[in-house]
Amino acid sequence: MTRRRDMQLQTLAIVGVGLIGGSVGLAVRRCSGGTRIIGVDGDSAALLCAKERGIVDEIATDVRSATAAADMVLFCTPVDSLAGQVLSAAAGARPGTVLTDAGSTKSTIVNSVEQRIPSEVWFVGGHPLAGSEKQGPRHADAELFRDRVVVLTPTAQTNEQAITRVTGFWQLLGARVLRMSPEAHDRAMAATSHLPHLVASALAGVLPLELIGLAASGFRDTTRIAAGDPALWSAILDANRDETLAALTRFEDRLKAFRLAIATGDREAVRNLLAAGRELRTAIKGDR
Amino acid sequence: MTRRRDMQLQTLAIVGVGLIGGSVGLAVRRCSGGTRIIGVDGDSAALLCAKERGIVDEIATDVRSATAAADMVLFCTPVDSLAGQVLSAAAGARPGTVLTDAGSTKSTIVNSVEQRIPSEVWFVGGHPLAGSEKQGPRHADAELFRDRVVVLTPTAQTNEQAITRVTGFWQLLGARVLRMSPEAHDRAMAATSHLPHLVASALAGVLPLELIGLAASGFRDTTRIAAGDPALWSAILDANRDETLAALTRFEDRLKAFRLAIATGDREAVRNLLAAGRELRTAIKGDR
Repeated sequence: MTRRRDMQLQTLAIVGVGLIGGSVGLAVRRCSGGTRIIGVDGDSAALLCAKERGIVDEIATDVRSATAAADMVLFCTPVDSLAGQVLSAAAGARPGTVLTDAGSTKSTIVNSVEQRIPSEVWFVGGHPLAGSEKQGPRHADAELFRDRVVVLTPTAQTNEQAITRVTGFWQLLGARVLRMSPEAHDRAMAATSHLPHLVASALAGVLPLELIGLAASGFRDTTRIAAGDPALWSAILDANRDETLAALTRFEDRLKAFRLAIATGDREAVRNLLAAGRELRTAIKGDR
Repeated sequence: MTRRRDMQLQTLAIVGVGLIGGSVGLAVRRCSGGTRIIGVDGDSAALLCAKERGIVDEIATDVRSATAAADMVLFCTPVDSLAGQVLSAAAGARPGTVLTDAGSTKSTIVNSVEQRIPSEVWFVGGHPLAGSEKQGPRHADAELFRDRVVVLTPTAQTNEQAITRVTGFWQLLGARVLRMSPEAHDRAMAATSHLPHLVASALAGVLPLELIGLAASGFRDTTRIAAGDPALWSAILDANRDETLAALTRFEDRLKAFRLAIATGDREAVRNLLAAGRELRTAIKGDR
């Protein structure tokens, strides 16, 4: 009993109550009845919406005071300001407080935080592979993380007990937790997320305006993520610059192969390239 | 009364009872009770499935005899064999029979057919902008064309009465009909369909196999159409070679702009490029 009580999350602070932070709040509410949730955001409209929707119990605009009251703090803020906020919060945290995040890139954040965080405060880098082109707490969804993957990126410096607690936290919300190094995470996300975002945006961006009435479901699917927030995504592409550019080079090489095959009328080569794409795509399980 | 009776479709032959042809059959069944439907396909399994699902009343393997019995014949076959089939069928058609098609490219097909079709048989090029990466009559859907656009590509040579009949046919199935030249159609489809297909395929094709478990909803959306049939799509890319390569050039130029902005850390330029893509994407109405 004592042990279970120790493990239970008493007070969670969520910094950034947008789509991800808001969905975490709703999911915790559903899966962990006794937890008190403090929402922190610089955007007071988002905070009020989060309070109205019952995502959070209390609202705060100061990260330090919210952190001082919490056992765990989850940072769901843009990747370019995230490390600074974690470090600022850590300065006011009680020993043993677990700080974690939901940032889409990991190397820069984890390195920055680990270089300066006090040793008695614990940080675990994380990234739930769930989201949407929609934004804000009004789109928050308690089921957003169910059956989704959450990547944690501990290093040699990360406290094992903190990893266990953050792992248990996401599992409670229905997610499957994987561990990778920050570098492996960023390399993988360049291929699965950052390059696709850039490509979807470029595809939408070069469509002549007079043709939008002719865009059928294929175009809509392929470009859906291009509706994401340009400010958030320019920060992500910047934070994962080298890996994104390396993935872009591999993609451009594939386009060159397509161009050559199409230009020379080599239908078999085109078919083989298409078959390679189809094979990979149909190997992905669990579309929903 | 006489006029309405004249306009009514008595016998429709559908050549190619895959996803599109099968869906037309189901939709006609729902929207035009009295029409007899003859299904023609070289694939006997597809024909049997179409008969079992009630998509067609009769099945045939010979295009000419089916055409001889029909008022209207719709060709839903791969673009590289379509014109030849239309011409072969036309040779056995009664005067005033309307032949039309659902091919994804138009210039090559319309030009080939118009050069050799007998003057008393009428051809109208068409393309319903609806579909799926799924194939075959078992995925046929009576609602596939509802609220979708069907492009007809008549030329100076096309019979006006035939255009009216094909327009009415698609409108009966719930579609909105637009008229464009074959060349304008192909230029538009290069941007809205053929380039996106190639891009989705390249994106899926360069994903390292070990990362497929990390592909979240964004990757899945962006690459969904890459699961389409490589044989069908290599024929489409070949039939619309010049326009597809021109669209590819515009897309590659946009990627170069992204690369330069990311590589130089010019976050404002990245944000502007992303904002341009977002603006176009959010201007597209009617996602479903």
